[in-house]
Amino acid sequence: MAATPLDRDDLRARVSAALRAHLHRRRGRLALVGPELGPVADALADFLDGGKRLRPAFAYWGYRAAGGHGSDALVRAVGALELVQACALIHDDVMDGSDTRRGKPAVHRHFEALHRAEKYTGSAERFGTAAAILLGDVCLIWADEMLDRSGMPADALERARPIWDEMRTEIMAGQYLDVLAQAQGGHSVDRAVRVVRYKAAKYTVERPLHLGAALAGAGPDLLDSLSRYGLPIGEAFQLRDDVLGVFGDPAETGKPAGDDLREGKRTLLLAYAAERATTAQHELLDRHLGDPDLADEGVDALRGVLVETGALARTEERITSLTQRALDALRAAPVDAEAAEALAELAAAATARRA
Amino acid sequence: MAATPLDRDDLRARVSAALRAHLHRRRGRLALVGPELGPVADALADFLDGGKRLRPAFAYWGYRAAGGHGSDALVRAVGALELVQACALIHDDVMDGSDTRRGKPAVHRHFEALHRAEKYTGSAERFGTAAAILLGDVCLIWADEMLDRSGMPADALERARPIWDEMRTEIMAGQYLDVLAQAQGGHSVDRAVRVVRYKAAKYTVERPLHLGAALAGAGPDLLDSLSRYGLPIGEAFQLRDDVLGVFGDPAETGKPAGDDLREGKRTLLLAYAAERATTAQHELLDRHLGDPDLADEGVDALRGVLVETGALARTEERITSLTQRALDALRAAPVDAEAAEALAELAAAATARRA
Repeated sequence: MAATPLDRDDLRARVSAALRAHLHRRRGRLALVGPELGPVADALADFLDGGKRLRPAFAYWGYRAAGGHGSDALVRAVGALELVQACALIHDDVMDGSDTRRGKPAVHRHFEALHRAEKYTGSAERFGTAAAILLGDVCLIWADEMLDRSGMPADALERARPIWDEMRTEIMAGQYLDVLAQAQGGHSVDRAVRVVRYKAAKYTVERPLHLGAALAGAGPDLLDSLSRYGLPIGEAFQLRDDVLGVFGDPAETGKPAGDDLREGKRTLLLAYAAERATTAQHELLDRHLGDPDLADEGVDALRGVLVETGALARTEERITSLTQRALDALRAAPVDAEAAEALAELAAAATARRA
Repeated sequence: MAATPLDRDDLRARVSAALRAHLHRRRGRLALVGPELGPVADALADFLDGGKRLRPAFAYWGYRAAGGHGSDALVRAVGALELVQACALIHDDVMDGSDTRRGKPAVHRHFEALHRAEKYTGSAERFGTAAAILLGDVCLIWADEMLDRSGMPADALERARPIWDEMRTEIMAGQYLDVLAQAQGGHSVDRAVRVVRYKAAKYTVERPLHLGAALAGAGPDLLDSLSRYGLPIGEAFQLRDDVLGVFGDPAETGKPAGDDLREGKRTLLLAYAAERATTAQHELLDRHLGDPDLADEGVDALRGVLVETGALARTEERITSLTQRALDALRAAPVDAEAAEALAELAAAATARRA
């Protein structure tokens, strides 16, 4: 039986239910500290309500690819990845000063609004930042707990833990590279590729696949096969995200159009553009990129540069060839037909032109 | 043989060595991501160089109190508490906008300075904040790893983990209560006591004791005994910290005099003062407390209020009686003479009038 879209929806629903159950238990713990913690638990529940559950899906199918059978314990274990991701996003939004996430106010903005509504004293912005930092920390802690108490056997967890640890260090290191690239300015294809590697290729796809496979007891050969599929898909996923960040429909991405340009994100798309830009186009990039007040006309002008320099087309070609390479590797991988089909479908979902 | 000060210095040195060894291994991992991560590893090593290692000491003696024998694995396991604390402090300094920690620039200020020295583009402040958020996250992750790979037996770690998890959630919840109290303003003895309970009594003393005792396989009776000693000592420790934050010598506290007053921390000391303040004294509190630009004269005026209302004396009395209660509980606890002596000495160190 192939993995139909219904299966993906079903897994998504099960992961969501597992997250809700975990949060429910932890909410009880927070209530013991005090009723003031209610808004913290609410904000987290609200935040976790969204998300495509892509990382749990890769981990789930990594487990299945290694011959494991799905279970509620497995869904809980892979669901923990969503809490790591919640930490990364909540902290990322503070770092970038983003207003919106998943079509709703970013967590720090949400607590800023709470500060204003309750007429608290002091800086609403500082309160929002503090609450979001702490909420991100809580996500990281609860992620750990959710994996640990998933009900997976102790030996499976022991195999998974080194991968879990590497993954968490890598995402933070990748985030730092990204922040540093913005601060250093300029454009470099090499640097952009390295940020993509750690922030996405490994963190979003390869490590989740390995996590699932390790839970099932996979050996190094299967892990290597999964890397050959996962790394290109992860890179393609991030490039798609970069393209959507500039050209995507805000109704679908959940973020205002051009936000990545206002933040001055040093994407591969921009590095490609800089390689082939005329002097006038370079001036446009320098003037507009990273301008937090950039108006829609400026966004349009930058989009024009990305199209005219061929950067968009080159990125699309790269997405296509990476995806192809991943699918070729998948065909050569020692995984059964059902897992292969599900992973092929996930590859398509992760790199699709719609958010 | 009693626990002499030399033993405490020795434990501190062993914990420091274990932290350095752990960081050394992780630095190698970061170097694989890229040479740009060097300053991140350096900043963390520098930060971890300081600290009194109080939490590891309580955990170590909790283990010994439960009849366990010290080992390098135990030192590594309890040393992990310093990394949780590093996360809490690094993030706390971002949230409070503190300039100084342990006599050196706070981590976010350190990265701000790096941004300026390297003439990076964009906001130096934003870069510093981003780097400190990520470094704090890394501490939380590496804390976990250090405990997990300490070399303690799997069954010991399994017993310790629920306590480790509770502790980490409690510290973040306590921090939120603290931030919220500042935002809500006003003064409440009840609220101040609750913040102290979670931020310090449980997190700094009770949970580390329990962590150590659980690693050694202690039963619920010993855990209760340790709570009867640990909770009052933890509260007394925080009250001492509050007093030092206002009246302490900056050369010893590593923070400018009066910083807690500029941040508007809602301490029990202040709640006591508010309870007995005259109208004029209330006006002084309202005017100066939480003023980030408060000059030394203002700090002196607030100190005057704390002395004249009897708040300082009341706090000192409370510290004395809490310490006494803890020592009485310790005498009644089923622990051997050596552990009892070490815990009595730790009680004195945690509540001493010098930082």
